[in-house]
This record gives sequence, C-alpha cells and structure tokens, in this order.
Amino acid sequence: MRPVGIHLSYWQTEWAQDMLPFVERAKDAGFDGVEFPLLQPETMEFAVLKAELDANGLQATCGTGLTTAADITHPNPAVRRAGLIHLQVCLEGAAALGSPVLGGVTYAPWSYFPPGDLLPYRRRCIESLREAGKIAGDVGVTLCLEVLNRFEGYLLNTVQQGLELLAEVNSPYVRLHVDTFHLNIEEQDIAGAIRAAGAQLGHFHCSENNRRRPGTGHIPWTAIRRALDEVGYTGWIVMESFVRPAGEVGRTLSIWRPLAEDLDAEAQAGARFLRRQLADGFPSEKGEV
Amino acid sequence: MRPVGIHLSYWQTEWAQDMLPFVERAKDAGFDGVEFPLLQPETMEFAVLKAELDANGLQATCGTGLTTAADITHPNPAVRRAGLIHLQVCLEGAAALGSPVLGGVTYAPWSYFPPGDLLPYRRRCIESLREAGKIAGDVGVTLCLEVLNRFEGYLLNTVQQGLELLAEVNSPYVRLHVDTFHLNIEEQDIAGAIRAAGAQLGHFHCSENNRRRPGTGHIPWTAIRRALDEVGYTGWIVMESFVRPAGEVGRTLSIWRPLAEDLDAEAQAGARFLRRQLADGFPSEKGEV
Repeated sequence: MRPVGIHLSYWQTEWAQDMLPFVERAKDAGFDGVEFPLLQPETMEFAVLKAELDANGLQATCGTGLTTAADITHPNPAVRRAGLIHLQVCLEGAAALGSPVLGGVTYAPWSYFPPGDLLPYRRRCIESLREAGKIAGDVGVTLCLEVLNRFEGYLLNTVQQGLELLAEVNSPYVRLHVDTFHLNIEEQDIAGAIRAAGAQLGHFHCSENNRRRPGTGHIPWTAIRRALDEVGYTGWIVMESFVRPAGEVGRTLSIWRPLAEDLDAEAQAGARFLRRQLADGFPSEKGEV
Repeated sequence: MRPVGIHLSYWQTEWAQDMLPFVERAKDAGFDGVEFPLLQPETMEFAVLKAELDANGLQATCGTGLTTAADITHPNPAVRRAGLIHLQVCLEGAAALGSPVLGGVTYAPWSYFPPGDLLPYRRRCIESLREAGKIAGDVGVTLCLEVLNRFEGYLLNTVQQGLELLAEVNSPYVRLHVDTFHLNIEEQDIAGAIRAAGAQLGHFHCSENNRRRPGTGHIPWTAIRRALDEVGYTGWIVMESFVRPAGEVGRTLSIWRPLAEDLDAEAQAGARFLRRQLADGFPSEKGEV
C-alpha cells in the first residue's frame, strides 16, 4: 500500500499563509500525510508542525522551489551558494518533519527563463546538484527534481531529460519527481515515461489534466497504476491540485476559474480516488488492478 | 471532406520571417491550404501572397494576436481603438487572401495578464467584440476567438467560457477557435467540449499534447472526429505544431527541446494523419469513422 498525501497549498491563497490549520483538514479528508511547501523555511516552526502531524497521526513530505536570488544555476557563485544554502535548510527541515524526500523545483528558479544560451545554466545546475546530493545524503533525505511543463521551466520538461541530467549528477540521493499535470502536457506516452523513470522515480504528484482533483478528467490512471506497479514504486502518492482563482497562489499558478466548489469534499474524493486507483493492493497484487 | 491546412509558423524561427518560401513546402507536404499569422499585417504584401497561393493551388486561413499596444480590453479607449484597427486590417487582409476566418488571440493580448481585477477587462472585451463583429460582417470574414491554456491567456480557458462570452457578444460573425493543445490542458472532456461548441465552432487547430505533429501523442483523435462529425463542422482542420527550440518563435512559444528532426517529413506525416483521421469521408459518411 502506497501512502497518499495532499499538498497543503491546495488550501492556501497566499504562499506565506500558516499551514498549521490545514493539517487537520487533510486528516479529515482521509490522507496519510501532507506535503509542506518549504518556500521560506527560516520562518517555519518545524517542531510545532511535527507535533501537529503527530497529534493527527500523519506523516510529511516536503517540496520547495528556488528563486532568482537563491539559484544553483546562476552565473554568480554567490547566488549559487545561496541556492545551495536554501536547499540545505529545506533538506534539514524535511528531516525534522520526517519527510523522506524534498521535491519540487529544486534545481532552478520556478517559472524563470534566463536570456541567451541556456546550456551553461544546465552545466552549472549539474555541478551544484552534485554538492546538493552530498548534503541530501548527509541529512538522509532524497532530493527530487520535478519535471515541469514548458511554461513553468525549461531545464526538465520530460522524464528523458531528467534521466539524462541524473546520469550526469550521478548521486544516489538525487532522483526524479513527476507530476501528472506536467506529464500530460509534455510526454508522448505518460505510462511509458513512468516506466522509463523506473528506479529513479523518487516522488509522485497527482492532479487532473486541468489541475482539478484526480478522477475528474482524462489522465490515464489505470495505465499509470500499471506503470507504478511495474517499476515497483513504493513512495508517496501526493495530490497536488490547484482549484481556486484566488489570491497570490491562484494568480502565480494561472488559475483563472474555480475548479471546485467545496474544497474539503473534493479533497476527500481525491483521497478516496487515489487510494483506490494508485495506492491500495500494492505490492501484494503486483501489476493487477 | 474537410480541408486540411498548416500554420506557417511551423517553419518560422522569427515572427517577421518572410512566409512566401513556406507556401510551396506546405503544398509539397500535401496540405490544401496554409494559415498566415497576420502579426504585422501592414508589412505584408497580400497580392503577392495570394498569387503564390494560386500558383500552388492552395487556399488560405488567417490568424492574429493582439498586443498591449493594440488591445481591445484596455482601459484606455485609444488603445482599444488601436486594437479594433488592427483587427480591421487583419480582417481585410484575410479577405484579400480569401480566408473564411480570422482566428487566434483576437480578443486580448497573447500571454498578457493585467494586474488587479480582471472582470472589467472582460466587459470591455465584450463591448469591443460587438464592434469587431460588425467589421467582420462587413468584410465577410468570421472572427474566431481562440480558447487558450491558462499560461497563455486568462479570459477564455474553456469552451464553456467561450460560449458564455459569445452569448454576450451576440454577433453571427464571431465564433470560437479551438486547438487540441489547449483542450488537452483545460477541458475535462475534450470531445464533449467540441460537442458543446457545436455550431459556434468556427476554426480548428491540431497538434499533439506536446505540440508535435498530430498522431504522435495522446490526443484522442477518434473521439474528436466523432464530435466534429456530430456537430457538422465543415471548416478547416489546421495543423499548428511547434517543434523547434530555435529563435524568437521557439522561445516565445516555450519550446525548449527539438520535437522533430525533419520538418518537411513530419509535416507530410501530419497532413496524411489529419486527412485520414479528421477530414476524409465527411459529410458523406456522417459520424462513421
């Protein structure tokens, strides 16, 4: 049985919004865990959050995103260093929360496209990730690189590109993070991409093609389930839906229409769907769905 | 039999690049027509282009996009006026080329997201489109509004939103333009969206989910064919693929990896696929695929 979580930004309208109140709602919706976006990890009280998790019997996963001020691909070594420090603080925060992974846009600033030749950015990214992989190993948290659609990133749009980057980074503590929303836009064959990722698959996010809760659109869940079983994925299944055209979160994620009325009811339906479709029965019923 | 065309920016690396040389390549690839992007229509020699079309036995469709300097949603009436003038020049150019439609982002600047409340932009858009509809009627070209994914526009992300806008515009010369790339990201049910568009469907663009040529990804072509037949769509089927991470075109369209090696061979395969899958046999074999 794979554990099923929900990304807490589902309920946020501002990125800096306190996440503590959402933990219980995630529990009530039927999830095994919650994913914390560690955007300003210095401001987060990890001990308080961990206590809230424990009180609710939940586990944690974590994600983050780099910024142009803390960017491991940047030409300026000081900015790269700031990026590595951010990753280190996040990896330590993830460890404090008991998360096995730090996923998200951990290899470049989110939705930032530098001018000019992009290849030197990739080269510096690889060099920095070798260092980040050592930190991840020290902390005991796997650093996962999220493969993104073209409008949110340029370095890793496909699993194939992710695997090529990983081969150059060559660290057992750096793996891939895939998300059905992005796979649907970029991959020729969604299930084939998951099979290609194989043992390099470190983290898995789920939403529908329009980022509604899983089970309401045309993501090929049955084929995805078969692929996850085939590669023996035992990690988290995290619902990362975004449905509210409200506040800073809605605008930065380009949500321009409401995709759900009752957020808690939709979260519950998403948990139920993901548990039935992607989590239950593994590994005892390998490949059988 | 529906006519099959190709958007000429498939071969462009710069938006201002001369399109004349691409007309013959489209003919050689097996298309019935070509779509001209009318981005700077003042600079285009429509008579020369029309002569080239005639020499190759091809027909034309046209598209355009507004800019922040020529924007029919803008608070400043002079900017809205500039937008209407741009639409008029494009509609007249389309007529000169013999195009039945002017599609594309004809209702707002492409990839521009104004700050603050977006509702007044929608209201001004509707008012302007009523005027644009009159111009379209005078010129005899249908103005089509392209439903776009969330990263390229905020006003019309779904067919449903398009139909609501059309109901308020209420002009027989304004209809919808849909594109499989955008449908795949935003619609819960792609074929259902086409059926909902029904008689309001004025123009149809095709690419795979990752904008490769049709027939290489997971767009549900058979269901789309049935929906087009069901609503009696007799307009153009235009391949709008973007596969080159090169130049201004590649960058503004967020193409970061090559999605084809031999562009002409891929265009030919796209023409063959679209003809077989979406064009042939209609209307004599209504609904039978």
